[in-house]
Amino acid sequence: MSEKQYSFSLDFSVRDYECDLQGIVNNANYLHYLEHTRHEFLISKGVSFAALHKEGLDLIVTRVEIDYKFPLRSRDKFVIRLNLRRQGNLRLIFEQDIFRMPDEKHIVHAEVTGVATRKGRPVSPGSLINLLGID
Amino acid sequence: MSEKQYSFSLDFSVRDYECDLQGIVNNANYLHYLEHTRHEFLISKGVSFAALHKEGLDLIVTRVEIDYKFPLRSRDKFVIRLNLRRQGNLRLIFEQDIFRMPDEKHIVHAEVTGVATRKGRPVSPGSLINLLGID
Amino acid sequence: MSEKQYSFSLDFSVRDYECDLQGIVNNANYLHYLEHTRHEFLISKGVSFAALHKEGLDLIVTRVEIDYKFPLRSRDKFVIRLNLRRQGNLRLIFEQDIFRMPDEKHIVHAEVTGVATRKGRPVSPGSLINLLGID
Amino acid sequence: MSEKQYSFSLDFSVRDYECDLQGIVNNANYLHYLEHTRHEFLISKGVSFAALHKEGLDLIVTRVEIDYKFPLRSRDKFVIRLNLRRQGNLRLIFEQDIFRMPDEKHIVHAEVTGVATRKGRPVSPGSLINLLGID
Repeated sequence: MSEKQYSFSLDFSVRDYECDLQGIVNNANYLHYLEHTRHEFLISKGVSFAALHKEGLDLIVTRVEIDYKFPLRSRDKFVIRLNLRRQGNLRLIFEQDIFRMPDEKHIVHAEVTGVATRKGRPVSPGSLINLLGID
Repeated sequence: MSEKQYSFSLDFSVRDYECDLQGIVNNANYLHYLEHTRHEFLISKGVSFAALHKEGLDLIVTRVEIDYKFPLRSRDKFVIRLNLRRQGNLRLIFEQDIFRMPDEKHIVHAEVTGVATRKGRPVSPGSLINLLGID
Repeated sequence: MSEKQYSFSLDFSVRDYECDLQGIVNNANYLHYLEHTRHEFLISKGVSFAALHKEGLDLIVTRVEIDYKFPLRSRDKFVIRLNLRRQGNLRLIFEQDIFRMPDEKHIVHAEVTGVATRKGRPVSPGSLINLLGID
Repeated sequence: MSEKQYSFSLDFSVRDYECDLQGIVNNANYLHYLEHTRHEFLISKGVSFAALHKEGLDLIVTRVEIDYKFPLRSRDKFVIRLNLRRQGNLRLIFEQDIFRMPDEKHIVHAEVTGVATRKGRPVSPGSLINLLGID
């Protein structure tokens, strides 16, 4: 297992409909997995993505860097681990790694940059910061 | 319009099912759009992604860097423009930009790294290179 | 070509990411195609699904019957043809057929039942009816 | 809870990316949920959908009837329950119900018809029948 420490993790298994005609998970679906993990992380901190949207505050992804190291296949089990850090006043950086289970094969490494927006304009994540346990 | 020259472009319009509960296109769907554009580009050069797969040669994406500059919404029309260059012996780099139409608003910039693989191992893109018109 | 008359049609081609590990379009994606065709039909009549949603009126699908007659594969071209009729006071029935092109192979037949709702309750489609050209 | 007996059930929760701009799960995604449940049911009986495909035997859905009774929303938990019966020599009928949890609200009722095919032609499900525990 990787030595690295993460602040959140979520277990998954590949569903057949997520595989494409190469028999492997389609690249776009990893973004779904990563997004779902971030939302579950937020929920674990008491922050609801959908509830925020209703209040006019949207968390928007502005950049994704994703390295596909090895493909997942039908029925593979995997875990997504996450760390969050702040960058400057506005940006939140989610570092996310996908490992196949139980052999801990490193599948994906991603860095996802998010900002909070109101009416399409970036705003300081403000009170979110305390909830998310970063400073 | 951007001054930049591209070697391929493809027109799209947003389908409602591609939008999420924020009312904007879900981030993962841009990877679908970009992939479809690359496959259409390959086809325009006489290279079929699905036919290659049947012959045991898979084109695999190893890295995506994507900047989300502005969201697309329901029914927006857009164009994806593409350039391809080679990096080292094994890597193909697709530079892809998404512009909303007709106002040419810059929506997404992406750099997508691909390699050719047989049985999961990278191989030189070899004869593909001539077909794709790069050197 | 089928002798049947339709009031609307829309052209498509299969994108590779819509195919699953069997190499054919995943069943769920036909519902996407059918939905997109209904929305484009509505737009052609001056009715925007997304705009209606903002006004609190949602068009909801309550039932789908879909016969999968023959699968679509990578890069197949196809057309979806549509007829709309009213059933009782509340229901709209969309009859939709998918034909592969250019050979007019019959791929899918579907009947989709929709109702208009406000705050989750069915309401008479009322003024929509005139716009949609049914009675 | 419904009085009905089912032979298999699987727990899910809604992921935000499965919701569309109406804030509810997009209709097509229910077909994904239902498919995943069928595949997990098959696996529980020792039958792998992906492995069968590699051996040239494809299980194909030929018809879906689906009633959407009430929508699922972001983060809803739900269970899918399933019964399987044989119809004639060739058809397998999966009856599937979705209930929101924990209140057992009935969300979807579906009947899904499947056939086994080799090279696109229906074949008797034969030895599958014993594995699946129907007769």
